[in-house]
Amino acid sequence: MALDFTIIGYIAGTLTTFASLPQLIKSLKTKDMKGISPYFVMSFTTGLFLWLIYGLFRNDYPIIIFNIISLMFWIPLLYLSLMDNLKNKIKINIK
Amino acid sequence: MALDFTIIGYIAGTLTTFASLPQLIKSLKTKDMKGISPYFVMSFTTGLFLWLIYGLFRNDYPIIIFNIISLMFWIPLLYLSLMDNLKNKIKINIK
Repeated sequence: MALDFTIIGYIAGTLTTFASLPQLIKSLKTKDMKGISPYFVMSFTTGLFLWLIYGLFRNDYPIIIFNIISLMFWIPLLYLSLMDNLKNKIKINIK
Repeated sequence: MALDFTIIGYIAGTLTTFASLPQLIKSLKTKDMKGISPYFVMSFTTGLFLWLIYGLFRNDYPIIIFNIISLMFWIPLLYLSLMDNLKNKIKINIK
């Protein structure tokens, strides 16, 4: 039965990890970051990075692999989010 | 040393879980879901639900607790995302 639980964990990890791919594609296409909180993107990306460190310390390969893949989606999202906020700050200052 | 790794895991879990709170607040305030992929929200919420089931099977309290809190943020976000998409589909049909 232990195997069944593991499969659920792998499906869960695949879903929460690859969920971010359509978001990255959408954000790259539309550049519309207005509705996305920069605090969400920053905290989430930092959290993923700490999960990776945790996985490395524990030699836990699923945690390491899922978080490396997630970071590949979230680092570009973080870049888009920060650039969008910087752009809006500059606009406000010009006004 | 094992304790140190656990602390990193708890900080990581707190960050990736509570990251979603500013997103929920922003989405509730602005109702601007245009930039957020509904596939992201659907897959992520389903993944969190499976993580919860995995945690319950394994009696893993951190997994259970972090995912219950996450779902409290993501179920309303899923509702906002689905409502926004439904609204846009109706608009397109009227045109």
